[in-house]
Amino acid sequence: MSREPDLAAGHPPFTVLRAAHIEFLVTDLERARAFYVDLLGFVETERDGDRLYLRGYEERDHHGLVLRRAPAAGVGHLAFRVASEHDLDLLERLYRTHGLPTRWARGEAGQGRALRVQDPAGLPVEFVYEIAQAEWLLQRFDRYRGAFVMRLDHFNCQVPDVAAASRWYRQELGFACSEYITDGADASSGLWGVWLHRKQTVHDIALMNGVGPRVHHAGFWVQDPASVLRACDLMAAAHLADRIERGPGRHGLANAFFVYLRDPDNNRIELYTNDYLIADPDWRPVRWALDDPRRGTFWGHPAPASWYGEASPVETIDGGQFAETRPPVLRDRPSVTR
Amino acid sequence: MSREPDLAAGHPPFTVLRAAHIEFLVTDLERARAFYVDLLGFVETERDGDRLYLRGYEERDHHGLVLRRAPAAGVGHLAFRVASEHDLDLLERLYRTHGLPTRWARGEAGQGRALRVQDPAGLPVEFVYEIAQAEWLLQRFDRYRGAFVMRLDHFNCQVPDVAAASRWYRQELGFACSEYITDGADASSGLWGVWLHRKQTVHDIALMNGVGPRVHHAGFWVQDPASVLRACDLMAAAHLADRIERGPGRHGLANAFFVYLRDPDNNRIELYTNDYLIADPDWRPVRWALDDPRRGTFWGHPAPASWYGEASPVETIDGGQFAETRPPVLRDRPSVTR
Amino acid sequence: MSREPDLAAGHPPFTVLRAAHIEFLVTDLERARAFYVDLLGFVETERDGDRLYLRGYEERDHHGLVLRRAPAAGVGHLAFRVASEHDLDLLERLYRTHGLPTRWARGEAGQGRALRVQDPAGLPVEFVYEIAQAEWLLQRFDRYRGAFVMRLDHFNCQVPDVAAASRWYRQELGFACSEYITDGADASSGLWGVWLHRKQTVHDIALMNGVGPRVHHAGFWVQDPASVLRACDLMAAAHLADRIERGPGRHGLANAFFVYLRDPDNNRIELYTNDYLIADPDWRPVRWALDDPRRGTFWGHPAPASWYGEASPVETIDGGQFAETRPPVLRDRPSVTR
Amino acid sequence: MSREPDLAAGHPPFTVLRAAHIEFLVTDLERARAFYVDLLGFVETERDGDRLYLRGYEERDHHGLVLRRAPAAGVGHLAFRVASEHDLDLLERLYRTHGLPTRWARGEAGQGRALRVQDPAGLPVEFVYEIAQAEWLLQRFDRYRGAFVMRLDHFNCQVPDVAAASRWYRQELGFACSEYITDGADASSGLWGVWLHRKQTVHDIALMNGVGPRVHHAGFWVQDPASVLRACDLMAAAHLADRIERGPGRHGLANAFFVYLRDPDNNRIELYTNDYLIADPDWRPVRWALDDPRRGTFWGHPAPASWYGEASPVETIDGGQFAETRPPVLRDRPSVTR
Repeated sequence: MSREPDLAAGHPPFTVLRAAHIEFLVTDLERARAFYVDLLGFVETERDGDRLYLRGYEERDHHGLVLRRAPAAGVGHLAFRVASEHDLDLLERLYRTHGLPTRWARGEAGQGRALRVQDPAGLPVEFVYEIAQAEWLLQRFDRYRGAFVMRLDHFNCQVPDVAAASRWYRQELGFACSEYITDGADASSGLWGVWLHRKQTVHDIALMNGVGPRVHHAGFWVQDPASVLRACDLMAAAHLADRIERGPGRHGLANAFFVYLRDPDNNRIELYTNDYLIADPDWRPVRWALDDPRRGTFWGHPAPASWYGEASPVETIDGGQFAETRPPVLRDRPSVTR
Repeated sequence: MSREPDLAAGHPPFTVLRAAHIEFLVTDLERARAFYVDLLGFVETERDGDRLYLRGYEERDHHGLVLRRAPAAGVGHLAFRVASEHDLDLLERLYRTHGLPTRWARGEAGQGRALRVQDPAGLPVEFVYEIAQAEWLLQRFDRYRGAFVMRLDHFNCQVPDVAAASRWYRQELGFACSEYITDGADASSGLWGVWLHRKQTVHDIALMNGVGPRVHHAGFWVQDPASVLRACDLMAAAHLADRIERGPGRHGLANAFFVYLRDPDNNRIELYTNDYLIADPDWRPVRWALDDPRRGTFWGHPAPASWYGEASPVETIDGGQFAETRPPVLRDRPSVTR
Repeated sequence: MSREPDLAAGHPPFTVLRAAHIEFLVTDLERARAFYVDLLGFVETERDGDRLYLRGYEERDHHGLVLRRAPAAGVGHLAFRVASEHDLDLLERLYRTHGLPTRWARGEAGQGRALRVQDPAGLPVEFVYEIAQAEWLLQRFDRYRGAFVMRLDHFNCQVPDVAAASRWYRQELGFACSEYITDGADASSGLWGVWLHRKQTVHDIALMNGVGPRVHHAGFWVQDPASVLRACDLMAAAHLADRIERGPGRHGLANAFFVYLRDPDNNRIELYTNDYLIADPDWRPVRWALDDPRRGTFWGHPAPASWYGEASPVETIDGGQFAETRPPVLRDRPSVTR
Repeated sequence: MSREPDLAAGHPPFTVLRAAHIEFLVTDLERARAFYVDLLGFVETERDGDRLYLRGYEERDHHGLVLRRAPAAGVGHLAFRVASEHDLDLLERLYRTHGLPTRWARGEAGQGRALRVQDPAGLPVEFVYEIAQAEWLLQRFDRYRGAFVMRLDHFNCQVPDVAAASRWYRQELGFACSEYITDGADASSGLWGVWLHRKQTVHDIALMNGVGPRVHHAGFWVQDPASVLRACDLMAAAHLADRIERGPGRHGLANAFFVYLRDPDNNRIELYTNDYLIADPDWRPVRWALDDPRRGTFWGHPAPASWYGEASPVETIDGGQFAETRPPVLRDRPSVTR
């Protein structure tokens, strides 16, 4: 249809497989551990002096969430797994060709060498192939605790120019679009948000119009709405009801049954279920109008201002400082959308 | 404890058993039927010209909800079942002794003679013993539709003087208190809400400080939170998301997992689960401080203004007009509480 | 209806309120603790040298399950709560009048003096009024573990003469019948099983035709079928699948969604949900024909032979030995039914 | 590891995407419709004289299940979707090169031309690219009925030589192995069952050692165990408990929470949930020993003999007759495994 934006996926010579992990910066590692492990039930795989490596019950990977002690909260990097060691070299070449910063991270616990890059939107991204395997706890039901978090599902990021960032992820990295938000004025402009995936779920990364580069949240998949409700009950029982930022509720987008929680450092996670499988490469993306109230909240609940306005700063890949942010290109309406 | 208000139950010579049904006034019977039967899955037992008699899947009674065509929305009456035909005569005597209006309602579909009274708070109450039995659908799972509503659970009413109304229901009618809200200033005053029961659940009737007599909502019990969530999905799918007034969420009070819906005439129902059993007559009531935020919303979500301010007018028992309302006696804080 | 057996409840001068606790004899207290507390999530209230006092998340009572170290597995006693201290004296008189053994148990942890009796069927029963209160964990969701066991619900016992035992519980103790099994040949005979209640659920005690007096199982209530399924997963993860004796499944009787587990000493518990409320004293009991296959297993699964044949011996109230058993009076068909 | 069988996937020049639909032969179309549509809640997309086209609530495809009127029950064909029209030509060449029967099916409702082949094991397989799209009902919760069946997930087939059939699907068609069953005696022999997938779930097709070619069952995905339990309740309420053949229960294999139902013609379907995502091509298959009791039934329930012995005959692709079957090559133990 001529009115639709071009959302086609490219065919790069390497294969990005899926979202692999995210590194959250926390100011108090013990306090963060109490939140993620003791209360929500994330599994601790390993810790070294400054880092805690966590995973969900469905994950074979050594870690899906890394907590790193730091002077200020934020996101160190978000990581994708690729299909081979050689893919890392191809990716290094791609980013260098475009004049983007890269470096190799070696010696991280639980994985081989990893390529760190700053993508065109400024997001600190890691690509990794070799990941150590931990005990698969899927059927160790006697180990299940808390909200029964199963696995990392996706990243949600704010970027100043969704159309440009979407183009990069689709055309250069081969991501496909599952759903998107447009203001409908014009096919090639007005892209307020895109949900992009490599694995066959609704997304590995979502890009939303906003002050960026920033990470809005990391989404973790749970098996059922009951796990989301249990998370709320756990938070409230621990006198953390004020850290339940939004939900539980259903997004029209992705059909996601969700709750958003803020950790003790204000990093935001989503517990998430009821999305769907996309096994067809010719999946026709779901289009949402910016002013469709069902998009963000199928049941009609408004999101709080903090959910729209606040997001985590991201480190530059040389570390030690946060990336500068820019205002979004689409400004005449609320700047964050979903 | 000396600081606690007197919440003891009296021992009247008759036995009120439980909440039996409520009569909602609706301006368009077909539209109301589409909402309750087609969408939410209430079972239609019978209809006559102006009334629709509905029940839930666990109810053996002919009806737990009556919809009556009327010029304006509101509540015709709320009904309790008593343990014998003779109890009706004893109740008539009680109300007459106190100079309260009574009359006999005969020939209503699905039940024997019923005593209608106007209670001291002005609420139109029916007492009935003989109720026709309908097919019990508990194990007719092939008939289950919509939100799988199981049975009427309770009434929630706003009254100007909770302490006085509570005293009536406890001392004269034998209701016991499960939970209550107090402003803590003084033991005998400051009663903002009481949850009173005859059957062994948290309540058959709740009385809340507010402009009254009015009915805030009728609560229907469902088996699990999934039924509550399904109700939200059903409402939204039917483009009625704006009729999901509050929730889903958990009340601290009663541990209720709830959602509040407004029907096409603005009558309010609650779908409700996760409360508990009270089999002991010496149950020590749960005390909630008026300013405890967990009381109303365990997870911290504020209720909308409409939930606090709006309630249904009630008919006088001679019919044809709504009872006059008075402002609440406790006024220095938000007038409706939970 | 003239064909129906007489199942009326008497009106004794005392008030039995509900099933209160059961005492299981276990040969290895640590092993039993690992099963009930560590795996299934029962809450430990207190332990003394030979006893472990456990409760569920909805229980305010000090204990709903007592594990007592003993040379052989079995049941020490099953206990009901009464409405007053004086009721205990009235009960003592009743049992003595009928020439039945009684004694006072004093100094048990978490409760006042208790009357122990041997009922006409030979079951060791305790009546108690004063029970210490423990922290109510209903909303301490951060404490929930295992199968989220909420509360003791009922006892299920095998007795040689159901009609006689039923008469005792109904006429002398005031229990009402919710459901029953008959072979249909005759109204006054052929009673194979009765479900009797004092609290407003389907039962506090069920009596089934069989070699007795023996306790078939103690039933604990959970909030939803998911808790029952989780119990199965927990058992299997702990390599105790062979201790899942029957289910999960649904009984036609009581609409119970159930699983039966055998503890390390072979004592049997049921995790149980989806039953219904009985608030009316004139509830017409549900009649099940002995040969109706839906009665025991609504979904058609046969129960294993062990479930029919095996039950726990019960101690005599003077302790130290097990009550002698007699064969059932109804013998021409399978002797245990449900 | 040297002891493991070779289970690598090949890299054919075409792309098989996923299981697309199955055609069941039924002797009474109205009776089958009552079962699938009225009771279980499958959605009817279209019917012509002899065929009924059904789909689940998550499916955009015109059909995931086709019921075709026929003189005897069985399976007409099972279909996979490919990534392009050209892939069909490449597949035709492959099968012809191996001397296997092929033909083009044109004019089937809801899809373009389709390639029908008889695979080396004798299974009648269709490949199709163009499939008409139907209304996506994922968020039409007001349309949900019955067991809330979401989508076709997989086929399970009995073949005489699992190793050979597995090799074909892996090496020639590019399927990857998620889990497998071996008798452990030797790495290259003793393959009793393989779970093979193209989409990122545990399987699109499972191949089990047995009399074949036959189709054991078609698996349909539901969102949660509650949907599986509801299916059991629906079957029992409709007096079809004897058609609940196995379960509900959990397979160790795939972590599947399942129930197996027989339709009025004895075709078998599985309702299935709680499996996991496989986004990595280097997923190391889960190995199950043939004699591990957890493999088939994690909770320890034995499967009935019918589940092991009975399966549906399959038509040859020229129609009108059923493919001849051969006994399995592995015979010293129970011939069907899971």
